[in-house]
Order: sequence, then C-alpha cells, then structure tokens
Amino acid sequence: MNRQDAELLDAQDPLAPLRAFFSLPEGVVYLDGNSLGALPKATPEHIRRTVEQEWGHDLIASWNTAGWIDAPRRLGDRIAPWIGARSGEVLVADSTSVNLYKVMHAALQLQQGQRKVVVSERSNFPTDNYIAQSVVRAHGGELVLVDTPEDIPALLDDRCAVLMLTHVNYRTGRMHDMALLTRWAQQAGALAVWDLAHSAGAVPVDLLGSAADFAVGCSYKYLNGGPGAPAFVWAHPRHQGQVWQPLTGWLGHAAPFAFTPDYRPAPGIQQYQCGTPPIVAMAALESALDVFDTAQQLGGMAAIRAKSVALTEAFIAAVDAELPGVQVQSPRASAQRGSQVSLSVPSDVDAYAVVQALIARGVVGDFRDGDPPLLRFGFTPLYTRHTDVVDAVSALKDVLSSGDWRAPGFQRKGKVT
Amino acid sequence: MNRQDAELLDAQDPLAPLRAFFSLPEGVVYLDGNSLGALPKATPEHIRRTVEQEWGHDLIASWNTAGWIDAPRRLGDRIAPWIGARSGEVLVADSTSVNLYKVMHAALQLQQGQRKVVVSERSNFPTDNYIAQSVVRAHGGELVLVDTPEDIPALLDDRCAVLMLTHVNYRTGRMHDMALLTRWAQQAGALAVWDLAHSAGAVPVDLLGSAADFAVGCSYKYLNGGPGAPAFVWAHPRHQGQVWQPLTGWLGHAAPFAFTPDYRPAPGIQQYQCGTPPIVAMAALESALDVFDTAQQLGGMAAIRAKSVALTEAFIAAVDAELPGVQVQSPRASAQRGSQVSLSVPSDVDAYAVVQALIARGVVGDFRDGDPPLLRFGFTPLYTRHTDVVDAVSALKDVLSSGDWRAPGFQRKGKVT
Repeated sequence: MNRQDAELLDAQDPLAPLRAFFSLPEGVVYLDGNSLGALPKATPEHIRRTVEQEWGHDLIASWNTAGWIDAPRRLGDRIAPWIGARSGEVLVADSTSVNLYKVMHAALQLQQGQRKVVVSERSNFPTDNYIAQSVVRAHGGELVLVDTPEDIPALLDDRCAVLMLTHVNYRTGRMHDMALLTRWAQQAGALAVWDLAHSAGAVPVDLLGSAADFAVGCSYKYLNGGPGAPAFVWAHPRHQGQVWQPLTGWLGHAAPFAFTPDYRPAPGIQQYQCGTPPIVAMAALESALDVFDTAQQLGGMAAIRAKSVALTEAFIAAVDAELPGVQVQSPRASAQRGSQVSLSVPSDVDAYAVVQALIARGVVGDFRDGDPPLLRFGFTPLYTRHTDVVDAVSALKDVLSSGDWRAPGFQRKGKVT
Repeated sequence: MNRQDAELLDAQDPLAPLRAFFSLPEGVVYLDGNSLGALPKATPEHIRRTVEQEWGHDLIASWNTAGWIDAPRRLGDRIAPWIGARSGEVLVADSTSVNLYKVMHAALQLQQGQRKVVVSERSNFPTDNYIAQSVVRAHGGELVLVDTPEDIPALLDDRCAVLMLTHVNYRTGRMHDMALLTRWAQQAGALAVWDLAHSAGAVPVDLLGSAADFAVGCSYKYLNGGPGAPAFVWAHPRHQGQVWQPLTGWLGHAAPFAFTPDYRPAPGIQQYQCGTPPIVAMAALESALDVFDTAQQLGGMAAIRAKSVALTEAFIAAVDAELPGVQVQSPRASAQRGSQVSLSVPSDVDAYAVVQALIARGVVGDFRDGDPPLLRFGFTPLYTRHTDVVDAVSALKDVLSSGDWRAPGFQRKGKVT
C-alpha cells in the first residue's frame, strides 16, 4: 500500500466523516488513542455549558433540573449497546481499578468461600492484578498468573473462583475469545470477570451473548471521554442483588435521600455506585458518546471493526515489508487482535529512544517496558486514516535507518524503578 | 442588625473582595455552599485551557508536560495548610466515600484484630456509616452509633478500634472538638478518623496539632471544586507505610511505570491513590484553590473563621428576633458550630415547602428530612455577605407569614423512600 492507495481507501471509508468530529493537532499522526483518546470538537462547549450554566447559574438545582443525579445511569445506558449489554445494566462511576475491586469482591462472595483462586495473566494490566491481589488477600485466597493464555484451561478446576481477564491485552493487543473462555470458566464452576479497557468502542463485545458474569472498563481510551474520565461497570442481571459490593456509598443505597443509618443496597446495577458522581468529567464523556451515535448511523460496530482490522492489517503488512528486524508482537490473526499493534526492535536498538524520535517527527505511539520492550500503536477507527498508517511506517523507517534515535535528547533519563 | 448595619459590615469585611472571584447568579442569595460551592469565575477558562490545549493539542504528553501525573499530590499540597497538614501528606483522589473506605480498612488493620468496634454518630452523614458498616463486616467487627456526642466517651473502651466522626455534622452544623476527642480515643487505645467534608475551607482544622490518625474530605462544598469534584485523604505520617490500604491500584504502586505484576505500596500518602486521576475535574479544583491563595493574603483562616462566626451569629440573632416558632437546631455556642445554621419550623408547617418557597424568592438553602425536618443554610465565608443574612431572614419571614409555602407548586411530590 503506497500513499496513493491509502488516500483512495480513506476516500472510500464510510467512517471517514468522523475524523472531523475530533480536534487533532496539525501535522500529528496520533496512534495513542489506546492510552488517551483524542478530544471531540464538541466537548469544550459541552463542558462550558455544564460549568457555566448548570453549575455556575443553576447551582444545586442542577442535580435535578440538569439530570446530574441520573448521569451515571444515563451514560451507562449509552455505553451498553457497545458492549452487548442492555439499558439499565451499566453504570458509569469511579475508576476502572475501583470498579474492578467492587466486582471482584462480589464475585468471590458469590463463591461463598468454596473457591478462592483467581486466575489471570501475568501480562494483564498491573492494576488488575494488584486489585486482585488485594481481594484474594481479603478472602484468604490466591492469585494465580499464567504466562500464556494457553495455560488458562488447566487452571479452571474446582478451586478456581474467578477467571479475570482483560479482553484485549494492553501490551500485545491480543484479544481473548470472551464467549469461549467464559464458557470454559463457568463449566468449571468459576465466574468470568472481564476488563474492557482496550475493547469498549474499538472491537465487538457481547457481554450478554457471552453470558459473562461481570465487566468493567475505561472511558478515556477508545471512548474519548478525557484524561482520567470515569469508568464503567456491568454485572449480569442474574448476579444483581445477590451480594453486597463492599464500597457501600450513599448513592448505591436503595433510598439515598431518606438518609437512614443502615445500608440497604439499591436494586440492580445502581448498588455499584458509591459516592457523588463527577459531573464535569461526565459532561466530557457525554459529548464523546455523541460521536458514537453518529458512528452508529455510519455502520456501527461492524464498520468500526472492519476499519480497525483494515488499519492494523495494513500496518503489519507495511512493517513486514519495509522494516527488516522489526518484529510484530501482536497476533497476526485479526480475530485475535484488538485495535492495536505492538512492535519490538532489535536488541541493539533502544525502543524508548525510537518512540521519542518518532514523536519528534509527529508520530505519536508509546513505549511500554518489559520483555521485549514494546512500541505500541493504537488505531482508533473513529479518527485514524489509512494515510496515517503509511506515514507512521515511513517515519519509523526514517528513524531506524537514520539512527537519529541515538540523539541524546531521545534517551531515557534515569531508570524506571 | 438591619440592612444598613449589614451593608456597613460588608464594607468593613476584609474578605469582601473575594465575592468578585465567584460567578453567582443575579438576585440570588446562595446559602447552599455547604452542599455545592459556587463557581469561581476563573474556573471555566482554566478548564478550557486544560481541555483544549493540554488534552486536545498536547494529548498524552500532558501527563508529563502539564504535570497531570502529579496533580493528586500537587492539589493535596495546596489543601494541606487549610487542614493542619504538611506538604506531601495529602492526596486528592476518588470520592470521600472511597477514601473513607481506604482509611477505615487501614485503621482496622492497624488494630491487628485486637479491637473491632467502630464508634460513630447515628446522625453522621449516611455514606460514612454505610462505609463503616461494610468495613466492620469485612473485619468481623461492629459499628456502634451514638444518639448524642455526649454518649461517645463511655464507648471508648478496650473494644473500640476506631472513633469515626464527621468534624462538622451535616444536619446540625455541630462541630466536634477534634483535639479532645482524638485524645480521648487514643487514650483508650483507639484511632481517630475524621471526615472534613463540612470543615475544609470553612473552619480551622489542625490534624497534626490534634494528632489525628486519618482524615478524608470533600472538595465540592466550601472548597468550590465543582459538582462531584475529587476528594482528599490524609494519613498521619506515623501510619504511612504500616499497612496496605485495600484499593491497590497501579498509581499507588511504588513504581507504577515498571509494570511489575506484584503490588508494592508507594511510600507515604501516595499509596492511597488507586486509579488514573480525573484531570478535567482536577483542573476545576485547581482554580478553586487559587481563590484560597488570595484568601490567605486577606487574613487566612482567622479571617474566614471570624467572618463565618459573624454571619452565623447574625443569622441566629435575626431568627430569634424575627421568626417566632422557628427553632435554631444548630449549637448556639459558636465554638461548637461550623459555618452552617439549621432551623426547624412548627410541626404544622411543611419544612420542605418552606424551602421551595424560599428558593422561589431567590434564597437558596436546602431541606434535609429527619426528626425534626431541617432547613439548612450554609454561610460560605468567601462569598456570603451580611446583607445576605438580612435578606434571607426577611424572605423566610415573608414565606412564613404569607403562608405562600402552602401553594401546590411547593409541595413534595411523592414520598422519599
């Protein structure tokens, strides 16, 4: 694919109009939407109205008149169709880590102390494993981490309480088969908890179709809700009301404004709310979800997924063809890959410095240390063009062949400890 | 105090210039800053810059270049002097409820299972008691609630693990003696955990001087951080690093960017961070704290407290003089009162409807059900005038004498369940 081919593909792309919905800096190829999604153009005005009119002018009345109090459910309802859940089942609240804590405790409670082992991947995003460590500690259980997904089935035995996975791995972009792993876990008597941080808005997710048990996810990656935007949480309806989640804040109470001293969980997903919702942050997410309404009209998840696969396949093909020595560290089978491609460079090349040199050339990916150290590139289908793929590979080729990643300004300062 | 007296007092008020820092709607007497603080005028522009420049243009680089990653500590450092803590000891993160959960678990862990009773007030803000219920459940303990603060000392025995109090009661505005109760608790071998939701920015707080053990608080009341703004958490340095708090997210890790699979808590207050900080919400709080820098120059907490006492004393005096049958439900001794005054009306008057009729006249307080039902009025010293006191009492007198609170539009729809 040369640049002309890419331009032709962009011209034919049914999602191409969506790029104009985003405010992207001139001359930048932004391939880091898997870390922080770009700013939707409508967001600043939506925030301004929320802040100046609803907060500044209408003040406390806005909890009712502007629907602030319903925002966690309202935004949850808008995320629901993108993850295979129904209206009323999803809540926007807190951070992914905090929500994972809630559902992991709920899941272990459901096992009633009969099973206490949580199975996950060593390469899961660290916060997931840290939270799981804390939860198993509280339940007297154990966290068992596998080095490759192929080791999971053998651990799904009568000790396994929960299989906790991130659907798309943050390092490699490898995507699990949610329906299959959920079925295997449940056949063994375990529950399946899914982190959709790198899935929501980028790849098809069918929580109800997979009969998953619990899910959490992030809204500031492919959903473009803004830095540190609130996360979401889902519990299968069969589990709602069965157990207490431990973060028993007042807005998860059945009657929060009755101000009674005893906690009584709200029915349904509402009990997963804890404190007062962050309204300004939610305003940003709300306008980001407006873009998905338009995406729905332009072909919905089928179009998003098709474009994501096309972009990542084109990137992999170009890397193979033009960058000898650079290894693709993501699955080559598109069905096993999210909307991200990770690369490694030969061991005598400093991956960190390469990423910095690329950023200096206007191509923004990111670096994740580890074995091997990775260059990560996220291809957000809503605003990434085929020409971005061509330009990114071309820039990477320049950086490697020129050796300008060796410049002192691109070197890592100090050691990550 | 007539309106002329009030105008004279406003003219002499050293904090009077601060009102111009806030965007308050014309013709409104806003006495609900104890629920939602008013919008600082600089906040919309500060948010706009954060959103358009830092997020929209600089994207992921802003985690470093705009100091996003340090925001929880940077904002904590700016709150610290207002609560008697030192730089490096306070973290802005999550909600008050979530932070209370962290410190209550930490406190019970410090008691090593030797003591499991948590003592609090039945009239504490419900989320505090709900969170405590959850925590004692996890530790096999018990939550004991007193009906009056006078019953606390008898419960500080060798079973008491934690005395958990909100410094200023959300219903009555009663303010506890933090130093005295902390000392009594600690003399009995218990720990003292303080919720500063209704204190921070409004009344003097001296956590280190009181040798308190843990504290949490809210930034959207007297600190004016915006609806659902992130909360803060403090642990006495002697407790930092002694125990795990259970919400072990990646940003509380000693080396979050090393991405290691095992959790290792960061030293100091940093371990109380969990997930990714909500940057847009933090931008709002940051500009709200700028106003406190000016308040510091105009006399600091001494001036804030003096004005708060003057406003609440004037309000109580006017109620006593002009509103027969209306009872002051807040302590009359200023030393025992926060920056709030709660009233009750005769039982044949509907307190809810009175609040609605007052709001219709441009005087915004709020209603809290209970026994008795309360009319709450918060006097934020940064933007409340003495004339507001006069106008509020005058409006309340009109509402009661005219009986127009009986109008159908002011009645409560349905029952709070």
